[in-house]
Amino acid sequence: MIVALAGGVGGAKLADGLYRALPAHQLTVIVNTADDLDLFGLRICPDLDTVMYTLAGIANPLTGWGIRDDSFAALEMLGRYGRPTWFRLGDRDLATHVARTERLQAGVPLTAVTAELVAALGIRATLLPMSDAPVATRVQTPAGTLDFQDYFVRRHQAETVTGVVFDGIERARPPAAALRALEEAEAIIICPSNPIVSIGPILAVPGLRDAVARHPGPRVAVSPIVAGRALRGPADRMLESLGHEVSAYGVAALYQGLIDGMVIDEADAALARRIEGLGMQVLVAPTVMNDPDDRTALAVRVLAFCQQIRQEAR
Amino acid sequence: MIVALAGGVGGAKLADGLYRALPAHQLTVIVNTADDLDLFGLRICPDLDTVMYTLAGIANPLTGWGIRDDSFAALEMLGRYGRPTWFRLGDRDLATHVARTERLQAGVPLTAVTAELVAALGIRATLLPMSDAPVATRVQTPAGTLDFQDYFVRRHQAETVTGVVFDGIERARPPAAALRALEEAEAIIICPSNPIVSIGPILAVPGLRDAVARHPGPRVAVSPIVAGRALRGPADRMLESLGHEVSAYGVAALYQGLIDGMVIDEADAALARRIEGLGMQVLVAPTVMNDPDDRTALAVRVLAFCQQIRQEAR
Repeated sequence: MIVALAGGVGGAKLADGLYRALPAHQLTVIVNTADDLDLFGLRICPDLDTVMYTLAGIANPLTGWGIRDDSFAALEMLGRYGRPTWFRLGDRDLATHVARTERLQAGVPLTAVTAELVAALGIRATLLPMSDAPVATRVQTPAGTLDFQDYFVRRHQAETVTGVVFDGIERARPPAAALRALEEAEAIIICPSNPIVSIGPILAVPGLRDAVARHPGPRVAVSPIVAGRALRGPADRMLESLGHEVSAYGVAALYQGLIDGMVIDEADAALARRIEGLGMQVLVAPTVMNDPDDRTALAVRVLAFCQQIRQEAR
Repeated sequence: MIVALAGGVGGAKLADGLYRALPAHQLTVIVNTADDLDLFGLRICPDLDTVMYTLAGIANPLTGWGIRDDSFAALEMLGRYGRPTWFRLGDRDLATHVARTERLQAGVPLTAVTAELVAALGIRATLLPMSDAPVATRVQTPAGTLDFQDYFVRRHQAETVTGVVFDGIERARPPAAALRALEEAEAIIICPSNPIVSIGPILAVPGLRDAVARHPGPRVAVSPIVAGRALRGPADRMLESLGHEVSAYGVAALYQGLIDGMVIDEADAALARRIEGLGMQVLVAPTVMNDPDDRTALAVRVLAFCQQIRQEAR
């Protein structure tokens, strides 16, 4: 069984590749929930939904988030009622939030609610939130401290991030299933998600970082930074404003002590030696996933890299 | 100022006619909320919504309920999540329930929430729920006691109704605005809604029946039964199974002591003398409203009838 840690769109793509490359029920994805928000009285879990829709094959291929061919009739009507419409909730997507919120309000934990939704969509993998308790990422910027989705969606990541806080993280606990999966995992794969605000919160949940740190490996991360740029989102700008090197090396340095191997893009081959200096092996491979076949191809390479690390360790 | 009491589609049509016939802000509609239900964790007020959508000019003209040209993407997705889909919630309609539920959960009373939605849709009339506290109609049938929407929508009114209960009615109180409106009303008009399960609950709210009973008039009801049949819905079958005469006379008898005038269809002209015997005046008029012009025409006739009763009383 393989455990992947993932945030939103980029992480979901590799998770999807792993899902296609592995036998059914052999993948567990632990997903960031620090981006979650309440909107219109509904609980929205953007990263969980992106991974879920992607694995279910219903994700919007144009945006990476939301549902393919979704309509926006409800959102337009909510706008008539004076509600904010900057968070683009499609009608089918809204149904997910309605269904989730109904169950959460009935007292069902997010882990169990997620399992219900995942089963209903026919996904034969396990998706786990990083915690059942809510955690809220807030970013410090010159414009003040902002809720994550305010910064990320409404303000289009225009502000410079000078600090990141995960509100509620000290009260969060990893789901028992997540700790069990990490303990039993043949390999742990950190997907190419933002290391600060996607993977960062997962590893900040008390107990989760330790569970990864004490795993015997192989533990492999895939860099979301290629040729000094984030493939999508603000990871590159965040790394820079928070004082990290904006490169696959900078990402590897953040994961030092937690991983045995780093997967970097062919464009970054020149960084391999420096990253090896951090005490990890390096796989140079094409990491840009433009279509579903790219996802599976990268997953196969990553799984083979894990296998190679495991054999060398014997 | 005119006060109308209304239930769903039939009542909404005459309320709309009154809205078009009267100057802005001269109409208050007190609406049945005993049909309300919780579905998917959302509070749905079918009669309030039908009146609201009708007065806003966005009602579905084919069904009378729901919103014109609405789509059903969210409901289809909720079905994928294993939720029941027999209550046909369109995407735009769903937005109303999401917006309402958000505000109710914030502690805002239904009266105030309704005023917000009505204002957002540009309606220049007052819509009031019969009470802020929830009331739930249950019908007794040979198949057992059924929730109203189970009987009405899911089972297509196929069961014989042997009794009707308004759960919670003893704890319900009329909104202060409803009592004030009834006190100040120049006339009270009971719309052609089901006298048992639409107008019945309104008059059963403690204090509301008395407020109508002590009004000096004119108070006029329009029969929802034409030529021995309900224009829509189960009013005719309900009247019969509950031991009432299935006619405009049977309806007038239910309102005896509360109204000064009864409006019956031309098809029922022969009943006029008997109804006058109940101590009320009778207007014979075309009461079937097939299009918006019919609504206004009937409203004008009803308002003139009120005027005539008022002048005769002087």
